[in-house]
Amino acid sequence: MTDKRTIPYHAQFKRAVAAVRDEGRYRVFQDIRRKRGAFPTATWYPDAQTEREITVWCSNDYLGMGQNACVVDAVKQAVDSAGTGSGGTRNISGTTHYHVMLERELAQLHGKDGALVMTSGYVANEATLGVMSKILPGLIIFSDEMNHASMISGIQRAQKAGVCEKRIFKHNDLTDLEAKLKAAPKDAPKLIAFESVYSMDADIAPIEQICDLADKYGALTYIDEVHAVGMYGPHGGGICEERDLMHRVDIIQGTLAKAYGMIGGYIAADIDIIDAVRSLASGFIFTTSIPPSTAAGALRSVKVLKMSPHMREQHQERANALKSRFRAHGLPFIDGDTHIVPLMVGDPVKCKAISDDLIHRFGIYAQPINFPTVPRGTERLRFTPSPFHTDAMMDALLDAVNTIWAEQGLARKQVA
Amino acid sequence: MTDKRTIPYHAQFKRAVAAVRDEGRYRVFQDIRRKRGAFPTATWYPDAQTEREITVWCSNDYLGMGQNACVVDAVKQAVDSAGTGSGGTRNISGTTHYHVMLERELAQLHGKDGALVMTSGYVANEATLGVMSKILPGLIIFSDEMNHASMISGIQRAQKAGVCEKRIFKHNDLTDLEAKLKAAPKDAPKLIAFESVYSMDADIAPIEQICDLADKYGALTYIDEVHAVGMYGPHGGGICEERDLMHRVDIIQGTLAKAYGMIGGYIAADIDIIDAVRSLASGFIFTTSIPPSTAAGALRSVKVLKMSPHMREQHQERANALKSRFRAHGLPFIDGDTHIVPLMVGDPVKCKAISDDLIHRFGIYAQPINFPTVPRGTERLRFTPSPFHTDAMMDALLDAVNTIWAEQGLARKQVA
Repeated sequence: MTDKRTIPYHAQFKRAVAAVRDEGRYRVFQDIRRKRGAFPTATWYPDAQTEREITVWCSNDYLGMGQNACVVDAVKQAVDSAGTGSGGTRNISGTTHYHVMLERELAQLHGKDGALVMTSGYVANEATLGVMSKILPGLIIFSDEMNHASMISGIQRAQKAGVCEKRIFKHNDLTDLEAKLKAAPKDAPKLIAFESVYSMDADIAPIEQICDLADKYGALTYIDEVHAVGMYGPHGGGICEERDLMHRVDIIQGTLAKAYGMIGGYIAADIDIIDAVRSLASGFIFTTSIPPSTAAGALRSVKVLKMSPHMREQHQERANALKSRFRAHGLPFIDGDTHIVPLMVGDPVKCKAISDDLIHRFGIYAQPINFPTVPRGTERLRFTPSPFHTDAMMDALLDAVNTIWAEQGLARKQVA
Repeated sequence: MTDKRTIPYHAQFKRAVAAVRDEGRYRVFQDIRRKRGAFPTATWYPDAQTEREITVWCSNDYLGMGQNACVVDAVKQAVDSAGTGSGGTRNISGTTHYHVMLERELAQLHGKDGALVMTSGYVANEATLGVMSKILPGLIIFSDEMNHASMISGIQRAQKAGVCEKRIFKHNDLTDLEAKLKAAPKDAPKLIAFESVYSMDADIAPIEQICDLADKYGALTYIDEVHAVGMYGPHGGGICEERDLMHRVDIIQGTLAKAYGMIGGYIAADIDIIDAVRSLASGFIFTTSIPPSTAAGALRSVKVLKMSPHMREQHQERANALKSRFRAHGLPFIDGDTHIVPLMVGDPVKCKAISDDLIHRFGIYAQPINFPTVPRGTERLRFTPSPFHTDAMMDALLDAVNTIWAEQGLARKQVA
């Protein structure tokens, strides 16, 4: 092999990583192998020589659909029938019948005329919000301060692509949102971008009231339902379906990678909005479409969950079971209305140490959630009980957490 | 169902699409179903009632690996063993043993210490270039004017994320590049971003000379090899491997979605560069990782193509066979050194009409390539012969193209 090149600015790359390490937020990815049929257990490879069985407590495969026999069969059948990759962008041979059927199903799920599937929820947010300023020059985007990185990135892209301003409103704060809407020029096009379920705080937006404000000030509404689709509403259409608000939100964004157990993201909206995004958004146009088998698996998963209210009930029951246990032991979790159970630590180094303890000593996997995923000082462990997390698993988790809490003298108090 | 909401700015969405339509570049996605085992044939659904068999001439599944039995088996085995989706971001339960093994293989393929897999080649370019200004404040990125949309987007992101300037140099023009490097402040960090094979023009960058300039002016080098990996070099390591230049390029970006027949993208580089991108790039951090089965299929595909120089030879032979036919008939194609055969039309409306004719009358599918994929006035049909495109298929294509060229009185002349 030829001599290695001396990399320009090598020290700066090292320094960038050292800075992350100094803050205690250097990420070590746990190497695991999911075990189909045994979810939420998995094999963990702490090093090249070792394999250990663990219980996964931090997966976003919220309903275990990534292990569902119907979904697995749909994927395998499509691979047998159509092969693996799609072979092209949506425009250049990458639109298959599976994509077309999936988009039809997603549109119907959200009560919209159209839907557009993208390679991820991240890309769906980034590409869709990013193109809005091209269509609506002078657009002002009102963005909840806790919006996901992908929405922030989409808004930044919109600001680069055209004349576009951003107004950040306080999290779920209607007074602040209204003040900012009121202060904006009356004739400027407006869009309110927010989430239904905020994944890290486990809370839900006041969607109806936000829509009321949108009506009052003539704003488009854009909601990210990635932590809700499949899990809320009579057919899994998300919080908007649950609250009968789908018709009041103009663009509903969702994911196929969480409750639906696959990968990919999408938007559902009026057909003219879909057509404009389809025709103009770089992140949609210039990338290979999801594989036919991914579309097939997602389609099956959406159909299955549409008819599975019992799974949604079980899911909520399990989440409540975990919360009850945490509550009984005075553990400082955020007691929200959703399936997500964040246990607050408030320090990145401690958070990482507790997570390491959990997996090494107890075979319990809950990744530390540190900055930039959450604000500094609010570091946490985030538990996501699924219908497949048994009472025994919960008891084991409580034993482990209680042991660590006692050993380290951590506080037991209610989180506001 | 509740009454439909009146969408604010509805007319502007319609107008945006109308403008695209007026330019003759409104895209109609052909709805097809790939047929495993019969590549490059597929079923086409022109409408809900009709099914027709077609030959796909525009797929980027360049080597038909999306249909390869070994790859299909690897995907199915992994789905059986680990389920469908990964269930999380790389940091939050989404790093599986398949991801780890794939990254090891890709690093080795490119002679680097490390590799990082992302959800697409688009995201790999956008996220990696986008984070560079955070690591190297004051960075100047020298970008080939024909660089892909994803690189342009990544550079825009870098400009939003930190102090960063862009200098566009003329396509493959060493004189212009050197002039721009020379004119830049000596102590500013520099990065040269370019592609090996330019997909739409079928030409190849003067990689060695660009690296010489990088050495002379102390610039990092970043190459996009998405249209080359799997297809060039003794082991499919791309044009850099073919020309023994892998060690001279700091960051090699590639895709799993073209020659490897799957989906996903990656970078390969020194481990400190990888670690910095891994730790800081939003588009990498905040998105669900590719499914275990996608990683498994890609791993198998990379391994198969590493040991399949005969497939690369067949591929080139088939590309040359098509070029010979086009040449013999005086058809205006770009006679480059690669496997891509662009046939120039130079008008978006004509380009679309020819494409429609080809599929409706002759069952030949080659999507029109119009703006914004290529500059206005250079609209084209882009043929991608694979090892599975037979002589008979080529003869049928030539008959069809010759018929249309004669009917429409189109020019037959060499393209410069």
